[in-house]
Amino acid sequence: MPVNLPLPDRSTLLAIPGLRIGTARAAIRKPGRRDLMLMALAPTATVAGVFTTNRFCAAPVRVCQAHLAASGGAIRALLVNTGCANAGTGAQGLANARSSCAEVARQLGCRADQVLPFSTGVILEHLPMDRLSAGITSAASALDGSDWLDAAEAIMTTDTQPKAVSAQVQLGGRSVASVSGISKGAGMIRPNMATMLGFIATDATVEASLLSRWCTEIADQTFNRVTVDGDTSTNDSLVLIATGAGGLRIAADADPGAAELRASLLSVATDLAQALVRDGEGATKFITVAIEGARDRDEASAIAYSIAHSPLVKTAFFASDPNLGRILAAIGYAGVDDLDVDDIDLYLDDVHVATRGGRHPDYREADGQRVMKSSEITIRVVLGRGPVATTVWTCDLSHDYVSINADYRS
Amino acid sequence: MPVNLPLPDRSTLLAIPGLRIGTARAAIRKPGRRDLMLMALAPTATVAGVFTTNRFCAAPVRVCQAHLAASGGAIRALLVNTGCANAGTGAQGLANARSSCAEVARQLGCRADQVLPFSTGVILEHLPMDRLSAGITSAASALDGSDWLDAAEAIMTTDTQPKAVSAQVQLGGRSVASVSGISKGAGMIRPNMATMLGFIATDATVEASLLSRWCTEIADQTFNRVTVDGDTSTNDSLVLIATGAGGLRIAADADPGAAELRASLLSVATDLAQALVRDGEGATKFITVAIEGARDRDEASAIAYSIAHSPLVKTAFFASDPNLGRILAAIGYAGVDDLDVDDIDLYLDDVHVATRGGRHPDYREADGQRVMKSSEITIRVVLGRGPVATTVWTCDLSHDYVSINADYRS
Repeated sequence: MPVNLPLPDRSTLLAIPGLRIGTARAAIRKPGRRDLMLMALAPTATVAGVFTTNRFCAAPVRVCQAHLAASGGAIRALLVNTGCANAGTGAQGLANARSSCAEVARQLGCRADQVLPFSTGVILEHLPMDRLSAGITSAASALDGSDWLDAAEAIMTTDTQPKAVSAQVQLGGRSVASVSGISKGAGMIRPNMATMLGFIATDATVEASLLSRWCTEIADQTFNRVTVDGDTSTNDSLVLIATGAGGLRIAADADPGAAELRASLLSVATDLAQALVRDGEGATKFITVAIEGARDRDEASAIAYSIAHSPLVKTAFFASDPNLGRILAAIGYAGVDDLDVDDIDLYLDDVHVATRGGRHPDYREADGQRVMKSSEITIRVVLGRGPVATTVWTCDLSHDYVSINADYRS
Repeated sequence: MPVNLPLPDRSTLLAIPGLRIGTARAAIRKPGRRDLMLMALAPTATVAGVFTTNRFCAAPVRVCQAHLAASGGAIRALLVNTGCANAGTGAQGLANARSSCAEVARQLGCRADQVLPFSTGVILEHLPMDRLSAGITSAASALDGSDWLDAAEAIMTTDTQPKAVSAQVQLGGRSVASVSGISKGAGMIRPNMATMLGFIATDATVEASLLSRWCTEIADQTFNRVTVDGDTSTNDSLVLIATGAGGLRIAADADPGAAELRASLLSVATDLAQALVRDGEGATKFITVAIEGARDRDEASAIAYSIAHSPLVKTAFFASDPNLGRILAAIGYAGVDDLDVDDIDLYLDDVHVATRGGRHPDYREADGQRVMKSSEITIRVVLGRGPVATTVWTCDLSHDYVSINADYRS
């Protein structure tokens, strides 16, 4: 069961003018499930993306980067399959990714380098090209309006539910644009550019280089701040789409509506990124790790991730056991060599646990226990070294995480 | 059940002249178990130690470092308790550690700065000083010969069995010295100087600065090469003791018997370090991660630990599931920015799994499956970048790891 993550309500998801969605059951890995999604974009659309930093990045990630560069962001279609990641597949993997783009281009009437391919699923296996082609035909014939819920379902792997969010961009009391987005991912989640996979679209017009900068900035504040297991995927991708089919036109940060549109994109991205953790493999708790008083961003992140990745911290949260010395240990081995532990304060929600390198004199284990039992918990560490703060979202480590990952392929 | 780790045979453990051991049931955390160990050394003894790099290092670690510096290694006693780590305990923790040394000194007739204190157990709690003092008295009255098995038992926490090893140093066909050692640790194991706790003693005489250098070199090849969960403890300590009560006298690396003694110390340390992993919390497999062809030691270690810490790799080994793309993903996110995956070869024991960035054409899943089912497995990664190799030992991640750490304090 995900942590405080309601199922998306189909009636709240907004169609985005200039964007059509088609899905198919292509039997990529197993028959019967919706496992392929095609997104067709209006000729006015601009697209930006950020991708995994994993050196074993998947063939489709390499093709996406090449096609975005070649087309200057003038993308006409996105193809996504689940069941096979097309990663660790060498030269044949690249040929398969390119060939799937050519097939989409042929059916939709655009150039192959205007198609972006995405894959998720098992690594080290090749795409079943015959079934993929049949799925593309089926999805192309189903293109219409924009059923975001079907789209979200078609890209799931170990996710227990689809993840989709919409927002209206308000300016001067009226709605000037819409934003809708979907994401997937529950394990192999420690995005280091973006996560596998997030797609966010608006009907506004956004100038290409601005869209690209926003994409990086938003990824850094949202998808790059979540971790389930510290495993950075080979296929992480976040894509921002501006179809240009609506009335709002943005060329610069100072334009009317730019701040409002960016805020809506950020809000949707935050919800989608947090949804990955709330639906994290085996998660029973949603944990916010907030670091304050750091000297710079690097040390703030190092300490936040050291806590968020510690198997001992994560199992203690699973057990609701206030064995909070494990958090101090994780702070201590984060690699900040001149850290003076005598300056550190540790809070669990409103409970002051540690101060001056040791247990706070007023701390009572019953107070720690009370906080540990809730499903949303904030670990706050105040370093007393400088002005920088950062936040990372993570989940606990449970028996179900082991079960899910010991049985994933079977 | 530990992985291929027989119970130490009391009859094979060698007494070390110049060293006496006493243990006690001091009820530090729970009544009834052997939880305190006192080691008394001859006036000829020299001692060297390496300690955790965790910034939240425990009070006893700080006191050990100060006493080793003050006494120049002329240590007369070691005091070890389990049940309480005396870490995250601030100024009172330091005072308690110093006061326990003073108590030992009073009873044994030496200076307080000739006593090294060690603690292991729960973090953020204070030592029960009254019970500790009573335990010291009891252990001091029991000092005799050297029962290494009792000593190994007295320092255990979540270990399922005591860890003790001995070796004879042979020179010119006869035995010139003895080496015995003990270690403990099963979780919070990713030593970054040494592990909590290892004690190795010989009756040879070894010049102090040489003993100190050997201690660092041996820690680096043994205890610094194992990881269970990536959590570097607050209390890691490795201590090398040369009692000087035997006939072998070593002042320099070139002295007769120096190479043989060093090899015996290294062999005992390797067995004790591997024992931590074989008895790792919940471990069902012993995994050797061997990296070859690295450009330097840093990148070899980064890739080895990236594999050894990946929860996805570790759960796949637990399940005997050859989902080996997870290993490629872990190599890819290890942070080696210019890594060319097309040059990488991956082997599982004798099975060639991946080459040139993708699946090896001859690789069959049945072969991977066969290797995954064994209890001792070597992951070999050949990078093709340079001459440097390194090895890290780790274990899988099982349901029992979660159970043990969710229930540790209860």
